[in-house]
Amino acid sequence: MPRTTLHRVTIQFGDCDPAGIVFFPNFSRWMDAASLSFFLQCGLAPWRELVKTRGIVGTPLLEIHTKFLKAATYGEDIIVATHVDEWRPKTFTQVHRVTRARVEGGEDLICEGREIRAFVRRDADNPDRLRAMPVPDDIKALCE
Amino acid sequence: MPRTTLHRVTIQFGDCDPAGIVFFPNFSRWMDAASLSFFLQCGLAPWRELVKTRGIVGTPLLEIHTKFLKAATYGEDIIVATHVDEWRPKTFTQVHRVTRARVEGGEDLICEGREIRAFVRRDADNPDRLRAMPVPDDIKALCE
Amino acid sequence: MPRTTLHRVTIQFGDCDPAGIVFFPNFSRWMDAASLSFFLQCGLAPWRELVKTRGIVGTPLLEIHTKFLKAATYGEDIIVATHVDEWRPKTFTQVHRVTRARVEGGEDLICEGREIRAFVRRDADNPDRLRAMPVPDDIKALCE
Amino acid sequence: MPRTTLHRVTIQFGDCDPAGIVFFPNFSRWMDAASLSFFLQCGLAPWRELVKTRGIVGTPLLEIHTKFLKAATYGEDIIVATHVDEWRPKTFTQVHRVTRARVEGGEDLICEGREIRAFVRRDADNPDRLRAMPVPDDIKALCE
Repeated sequence: MPRTTLHRVTIQFGDCDPAGIVFFPNFSRWMDAASLSFFLQCGLAPWRELVKTRGIVGTPLLEIHTKFLKAATYGEDIIVATHVDEWRPKTFTQVHRVTRARVEGGEDLICEGREIRAFVRRDADNPDRLRAMPVPDDIKALCE
Repeated sequence: MPRTTLHRVTIQFGDCDPAGIVFFPNFSRWMDAASLSFFLQCGLAPWRELVKTRGIVGTPLLEIHTKFLKAATYGEDIIVATHVDEWRPKTFTQVHRVTRARVEGGEDLICEGREIRAFVRRDADNPDRLRAMPVPDDIKALCE
Repeated sequence: MPRTTLHRVTIQFGDCDPAGIVFFPNFSRWMDAASLSFFLQCGLAPWRELVKTRGIVGTPLLEIHTKFLKAATYGEDIIVATHVDEWRPKTFTQVHRVTRARVEGGEDLICEGREIRAFVRRDADNPDRLRAMPVPDDIKALCE
Repeated sequence: MPRTTLHRVTIQFGDCDPAGIVFFPNFSRWMDAASLSFFLQCGLAPWRELVKTRGIVGTPLLEIHTKFLKAATYGEDIIVATHVDEWRPKTFTQVHRVTRARVEGGEDLICEGREIRAFVRRDADNPDRLRAMPVPDDIKALCE
């Protein structure tokens, strides 16, 4: 069972659209926050430190596949449970399961996202360009 | 060749993150705008009219799969080209190709999203609940 | 001393702009969340209930005046302290003080916003139009 | 009459809240875009160029005072008209008037924002810290 971290969000009025439910790009926003929270909870320093010490700018997204099962609305608390499903030489797959926080009862799955991400650094010749780098072994070890 | 509509966006400073590139949930936001723009350009009335005349609340997302190929930053103009790839009885697949607007040269693809959406109405017994409805034939005809 | 409620926010990577600091409209977003949180913490039902029971759609903003004193960045926790500074017949002034959450030391004020808001209902003749209503006495009593 | 630039926005579904009107922090977002658009239309290079050539990181906001007069909803086009109302040694006041775009008829003012901003550079001793700098004379000349 891989290491799994939790990220809690209270849905706000302004996160919802005229249909009264969460405007879906906000789920991508919360999954992105959960992705970074995963690394911080595993013991990594924030990107603004890592860019200075190791040149790591962040873990931009290469691909995301999200399935929406139920709607959610403001005033509700949701929990994003995050783990890394697969490590490859230069990319990894991070999975986010978003459920409604509940005092009792079974899991109430709202949506699930599978992200392919890569650690990147700035290109030596062109600093405006970001390049994928091999997944650092020490970071991988922290996150398993 | 299915009907394809264009939706142009100028990327703003606030759309970008500390790495200087578009914060990716904004692409979902622009694809959602392009999805609605597609229907409006095909001749549909806005949802706030259709909810009154036909009970159609909108076309919420069931699934989205996006691949990110290149980064984009503020000051750049992008074009979202949208078409419906497949119509099924109760859902349809809408594809959004996001390219950099350029005066000349080949297409510069930034990302591509495949969305599965459904037309929904409010449940008769519980108006807080949204239900998928069959794709209306007249709407399908307008969009092909 | 008027009733004051607290609303805590962890600043996310995507809340920050290419300068690495919070993109300021997010402070407006957090103040709006704090405004609603104030009413919920004071005992009001959410708007989607109040619109059914009493016709109250919400408390849209008429005016906001925000002063920014310090920058904040992702990974930091901030606290929005909210109170109503003045009740008038049809409007009220809500003040939000945003400080950095700290274990010790004095208050670290990041920004402060003064909002003028009104309770609104839908116009009887034109439901698309929102109209200010007198501040309900029972709600005022809950919030003082 | 000071130089005034226009910035046009089409309001999207996701820009609106459960009350069906624009979630107000989006107006701050559009005013910020209009602020930068003003400088670009006046002939300035984007910040990512100016930070390299002149050390100018941007023009962060010190204060904003916005009055909301009318609501707006998705599908509507709005125009943000921007000018600098006052130049001081280290700050300037930028005014944004947001009106509904209309083919004919008088101006339909939705909201108006007055911003106090400053040009900033990174502190020589602590690059994480931003410092206000005197308004550059050549930039002021371009914008009048």
